[in-house]
Amino acid sequence: MDNRPVGVFDSGLGGLTAVRELRRLLPNEDIVYFGDTGRCPYGTKGRVTIERFAAQDIRFLLGFNVKVIVIACNTVSSVALEMASEMSPVPVVGVIESAARAASAATKSGKIGVLGTFTTITSGRYEQALHALQPSLTVTGRACPMFVPLVENGYFGRDCRVAEIIAHEYLDELRGTVDTLILGCTHYPILKGMIADIMGDGVALIDTGRETAMEAARLLEHRGLLKDGGDGSARFFVSDRTDDFARLAAILLGSPIENVGLVKIDQY
Amino acid sequence: MDNRPVGVFDSGLGGLTAVRELRRLLPNEDIVYFGDTGRCPYGTKGRVTIERFAAQDIRFLLGFNVKVIVIACNTVSSVALEMASEMSPVPVVGVIESAARAASAATKSGKIGVLGTFTTITSGRYEQALHALQPSLTVTGRACPMFVPLVENGYFGRDCRVAEIIAHEYLDELRGTVDTLILGCTHYPILKGMIADIMGDGVALIDTGRETAMEAARLLEHRGLLKDGGDGSARFFVSDRTDDFARLAAILLGSPIENVGLVKIDQY
Repeated sequence: MDNRPVGVFDSGLGGLTAVRELRRLLPNEDIVYFGDTGRCPYGTKGRVTIERFAAQDIRFLLGFNVKVIVIACNTVSSVALEMASEMSPVPVVGVIESAARAASAATKSGKIGVLGTFTTITSGRYEQALHALQPSLTVTGRACPMFVPLVENGYFGRDCRVAEIIAHEYLDELRGTVDTLILGCTHYPILKGMIADIMGDGVALIDTGRETAMEAARLLEHRGLLKDGGDGSARFFVSDRTDDFARLAAILLGSPIENVGLVKIDQY
Repeated sequence: MDNRPVGVFDSGLGGLTAVRELRRLLPNEDIVYFGDTGRCPYGTKGRVTIERFAAQDIRFLLGFNVKVIVIACNTVSSVALEMASEMSPVPVVGVIESAARAASAATKSGKIGVLGTFTTITSGRYEQALHALQPSLTVTGRACPMFVPLVENGYFGRDCRVAEIIAHEYLDELRGTVDTLILGCTHYPILKGMIADIMGDGVALIDTGRETAMEAARLLEHRGLLKDGGDGSARFFVSDRTDDFARLAAILLGSPIENVGLVKIDQY
């Protein structure tokens, strides 16, 4: 038993899709979430910058005496997981390995697609992680840079013409060539309905937020670190709070957000 | 005569549209450009964060002994121009006043529209600046949060269906109600053709980068600060360099970019 909180961070609010899954799986756990809204998105930035940002995010969470750190950000997991694991005295769970394991288990044809930001896709980390599990897999990456702005601006309904045109541009070449598709960015599950419509029934969609929450749950259970009952709480911190915050948080978390603190993250 | 360089900064690469105009108007001048690509966009962030970022951007440019600072960023000009003018020992030119003067001179009906990011529009600064010039003006603001991602991802051709749908969503209510439209974000001139098609011939489009370059040129001339001939140079600095950099810079500057330095801006 361990009643310390679970720390979760992301470049912005996308990681709230992982918090939603964590709360569903582990309703007793206390969660501290940090979203680096003052410096998001990370997905368009380079490795050195992302490593510096991630180190600050982790130092902030460690101040809450967390028992595990969940990196609910594909970009950070792609380029800075090793650094994060080295600097953190508590276990670190990233999205890449979690999602790769799920995809490797799901595929029958051995052909897996990965959607993500430019940085995630060009890092090749999903391909590496998948090949470490099964060297024979064929992995096709596709950067989908418009998906985050689409979600954040409300273009995600199944009947949204703009999202449909752009999703077709990104997905048509993948359709029919893979049987498993990793939604390698925490915003993408919001577009899951449309992606499923385009890819067709035979394709398994891997939600990285959900897989990472499951991985964190397994880790806490195996190491005897689960909380000893009681209702779970959630505290949210961001590095910038805009007028738009509540609307966006509700889209991604699936419920209104309360208890939001403002952090000067570049001082960590 | 004054042979010190002209300093220009923006939250990212959008300000390159102003550099393009500056080079056209003042081909002799040396230009130092800083784009805060490591922390862009500013337009979704709050006032306190933007002021802190702008102060660092200005300190960086002052290190080059610049003779004027051009804030080629509507968001910074909206919320941090006063702070910038107070902290800078050299004159500061922002986009808001420059564009407001041009719009006030162009309108016949007294009805002006303003397009910009969420932060620019909710700041109400364009409305304030226009009313300071002509209290009787009617000003209608419209946030266009998808325009920056559209431009940055290549969705800006006059025949681009996605840009057309979104531009209609933003502009249809304004069409026929204003005779002058301020393109209140440095990225928007790239969409000028499509915006002109939707708004119709009778509407004057105010390009804030161009107006700000003209304002800076007037200021240098009036104060006797122009360079004494010779070819102008341009040096570019960014806080993050991604694989995507060259492609984006070419879209916004209109020519390939060279001489790019990397800056740890949070140390300024």
